[in-house]
Amino acid sequence: MKTECINIKNPNAKDLTLPVVMTIAGSDSSGGAGIEADLKTFSAFGVYGATCIAALTAQNTCGVKSFEKTSQGLIAKILKANLEDFYGYENAPLKVIKTGMLTKEAIEEVAKCDIEVKFLIDPVMVSTSGSQLFDLEGIKYCVEHLMNNAFLITPNVPEAKALYGLFDSPSDITNLEDFKQFIVKLQGHIKCQNLLVKGGHIPFDKDGKVSKNGSQIIDILYEAETDKLTLFRSEYINSENTHGTGCSLASAISANIANGRSLSDAIVISIDFIHTGMLQMTKLGHGNGPLNHNITPCTQITRITDMADNNILKFDDNHTFIDYLTSHPKVKQTWQNYVEHPFVKRLAENNLPFENFFYYLKQDYHYLIIYARMHGLLASKAPTYQQTHAAATIIGEIITEVEHHKKRLKAYNVDYERDIEKLQPGKACIEYCDYLLDIGQKEDFLGIKVALAPCLHGYAEAGAYGKKLRTENPVEIPEVYSGWLDEYASDWYSKADKEGRLALNALVRDGITQGRADELVDIFNKVSQLEINFWSEVLDI
Amino acid sequence: MKTECINIKNPNAKDLTLPVVMTIAGSDSSGGAGIEADLKTFSAFGVYGATCIAALTAQNTCGVKSFEKTSQGLIAKILKANLEDFYGYENAPLKVIKTGMLTKEAIEEVAKCDIEVKFLIDPVMVSTSGSQLFDLEGIKYCVEHLMNNAFLITPNVPEAKALYGLFDSPSDITNLEDFKQFIVKLQGHIKCQNLLVKGGHIPFDKDGKVSKNGSQIIDILYEAETDKLTLFRSEYINSENTHGTGCSLASAISANIANGRSLSDAIVISIDFIHTGMLQMTKLGHGNGPLNHNITPCTQITRITDMADNNILKFDDNHTFIDYLTSHPKVKQTWQNYVEHPFVKRLAENNLPFENFFYYLKQDYHYLIIYARMHGLLASKAPTYQQTHAAATIIGEIITEVEHHKKRLKAYNVDYERDIEKLQPGKACIEYCDYLLDIGQKEDFLGIKVALAPCLHGYAEAGAYGKKLRTENPVEIPEVYSGWLDEYASDWYSKADKEGRLALNALVRDGITQGRADELVDIFNKVSQLEINFWSEVLDI
Repeated sequence: MKTECINIKNPNAKDLTLPVVMTIAGSDSSGGAGIEADLKTFSAFGVYGATCIAALTAQNTCGVKSFEKTSQGLIAKILKANLEDFYGYENAPLKVIKTGMLTKEAIEEVAKCDIEVKFLIDPVMVSTSGSQLFDLEGIKYCVEHLMNNAFLITPNVPEAKALYGLFDSPSDITNLEDFKQFIVKLQGHIKCQNLLVKGGHIPFDKDGKVSKNGSQIIDILYEAETDKLTLFRSEYINSENTHGTGCSLASAISANIANGRSLSDAIVISIDFIHTGMLQMTKLGHGNGPLNHNITPCTQITRITDMADNNILKFDDNHTFIDYLTSHPKVKQTWQNYVEHPFVKRLAENNLPFENFFYYLKQDYHYLIIYARMHGLLASKAPTYQQTHAAATIIGEIITEVEHHKKRLKAYNVDYERDIEKLQPGKACIEYCDYLLDIGQKEDFLGIKVALAPCLHGYAEAGAYGKKLRTENPVEIPEVYSGWLDEYASDWYSKADKEGRLALNALVRDGITQGRADELVDIFNKVSQLEINFWSEVLDI
Repeated sequence: MKTECINIKNPNAKDLTLPVVMTIAGSDSSGGAGIEADLKTFSAFGVYGATCIAALTAQNTCGVKSFEKTSQGLIAKILKANLEDFYGYENAPLKVIKTGMLTKEAIEEVAKCDIEVKFLIDPVMVSTSGSQLFDLEGIKYCVEHLMNNAFLITPNVPEAKALYGLFDSPSDITNLEDFKQFIVKLQGHIKCQNLLVKGGHIPFDKDGKVSKNGSQIIDILYEAETDKLTLFRSEYINSENTHGTGCSLASAISANIANGRSLSDAIVISIDFIHTGMLQMTKLGHGNGPLNHNITPCTQITRITDMADNNILKFDDNHTFIDYLTSHPKVKQTWQNYVEHPFVKRLAENNLPFENFFYYLKQDYHYLIIYARMHGLLASKAPTYQQTHAAATIIGEIITEVEHHKKRLKAYNVDYERDIEKLQPGKACIEYCDYLLDIGQKEDFLGIKVALAPCLHGYAEAGAYGKKLRTENPVEIPEVYSGWLDEYASDWYSKADKEGRLALNALVRDGITQGRADELVDIFNKVSQLEINFWSEVLDI
């Protein structure tokens, strides 16, 4: 007998906490809708899914063939088991419950739960295949017991009209203005916190009129507390893969809320997820096929949404994008704390033990290697081959900087390779490098450039700060300190700083949206803080 | 009222086909086991999951509180709905069925299905929390009707002993030899095609003796057709996150089989997935918490498994790794078809219309930009900063090659930027570039180097081939052809070729396992084929 032995290595441990969302809904055996779609969607967004199955269906892409309700007793026990284990004690991460197809039995049991979580209610009444999944009695009961004060309700237009019909006879929706008024009134009836009505059934033409041949789909969110309407406008998608799109949208919103997103951002990301899933799937089954839940969702709002003409920021070479970033209210103080860091002051005043400076150089060595690698990622994402080349050239310059480090230390009889390569990077360095590598994976060329900017430009300002201190208060300092300070106050570094500013400006030549600017401000601010931590750690060893 | 309008862009369409696996099992409301764990695992491996829920449980990490069987009638309808839609017609992708907790009703209905799919049966009998989930009668019935001739059965040791007990009284397992014999005999009783017994309950010490304090876990696969035993050996993992590990392992294997992996590879990848999920999860719930199904699985066998000392390939500068690759039985013919491609012959014999050559240059321009970007990814993954630097230097050389292209065409009054940049790459070029970018994401430094090697070294051999043809049969050819042919037969290119061979050899200086070599052979062969397609397309326009 042949025998082979395969040794499997153990992976590294990591402390990863997942938010928990419970879905209370029916099961769709075909896997495209119901709790199956919910679980697939939760996984796509890195959320842990628990379930309470209100009914089982025998179903495929052509329709619901049969169903069986879950007994009220079992539903009660399921809710108890999940809540006891996942809710209401230290670190219990259940904060969101999503409901889909419900039965009266399920609503009664859910209504009994005395819990403070966000309820997202997708009032599934009519499935894509036309089967009635939720009767009128159930709807009434649900409005009274669950929807009232729920965090979000997500009906499509027919469902919204049916809900409206419980209170008043709905008037026709013939244009966008009708649609908006309808939604505000419906929220007034239901008294949920937020209401999203999905406009897939009533396409609009370019004049904002409902039209069978309209190509614009408008979903509208009404947030009652702030009395705000948000219109999510997209082009009609011609796809047969529509089975489970409603369930999946609601579960994607739930997952993003559990991940801490704002409601409006959660909706943008979720609509894009559904659209991508519809368009990136070979049709499955004989009827309306399911979407592809296994795609990697895009979570960058600015990549998903179009530039709105009225909200574009422009920069010129006198008022550069770097100036905008460093003077931004969110960044200003961080930036100053960074470029006027006590580390620089203590060097300039010869007030830092060499041991600490040596620790800095070791940290910086590790950092520079990651910084060089990041320019490799930058090269790989460059829009033009000239920019690929430019990024590669910078790698060469970073290597030169590493060699300077080596020389500087050789004068102190420190053998760089022997003494440094074997030493491990510290906490601040690891955190900084991990963040950069993460940005390198997720961001585009501009995003990576911005993440690399605080190092390039901050060192120039820190160099100037050091020079000013030494002019004001001339103290004799060791050559290894003055050499370091002089480098970042030098003409060549100042030239690199200026070129970097212009290169970044060239990237945003056509302007960027306020939304994108906000994302970049957050990246720039985070990296500036990581620079502060990097130097602070040096003083604390 | 405030109103905001957000325009959402439509994503690109892609034709993505997902394999389908149906899971027939119980539902675990806590989401850690049962069909919930199956669906999460399928998603992690990019597989589409359909379900047939045999029973509902009210369950959390502390145990099963209650359960309800699904009626036999509904199970029959669910199976019919899923099979009608996903099985047995053109493009119907259901090829694998995984079963977990079953009821007699479910087994009866499954046994009635006249279908040719691979059955993977996880005989869930005792859950981690100690509850009996599958009674003796059920087991007997299952052995007779489902396990006989099933593709794979995956019991743990207590389950395997219970199965064995149906035929004979099992003897004690005190050492590895006992365990192996037990498995072979058990397969003989059940007559399944393959049997994997999970050894988590019987740790071994270093002498191969079962011991409570043993630290080695050994899972054993017996493949009856080839009479082969494979031992999967790993270190015991101390983790409380064990809820649903059995279900998840079986569904991970099912997903990998559906993805076309060999059984042994599927098991390696799945064990690593479970281990990573156990180790990369903050504990959830009061009892044994679930694993994290949302990690990105590793699918590279050689990263998961240890080098086996007896299976290391070594290379020296006279017998380089490139020689090994190009002379490998899987590659040899592909390589020859590539480096002696008719494209080269027709250039050397002045037998190619300029239009075709121009098409080639356009394609090659796009390719070179991606080739430069790939070296950015290479730089970002380099083990040392010197290698980062070397990759950046190569980017500079590729840019030089692009400039050569430009000059060459200028002589023919072709304005490179005007005529070429706006043209779209062809099918062969896109396919090649997409494959490289995919490798750039998934592979390590060595893997990327190997993917980039056929271009570098193949062009040197093609250059030599062209030179030989022109020496044997001297024909006057236009300067644009001879210039191109001469470049790749030149001394500088031959030097680059040689340096590349030595640089690759340096990377495998310590030898590589046969397994890793096999993976690299596949990459090298695939890229060589893509080079052939690239030239073939030029002849066919």
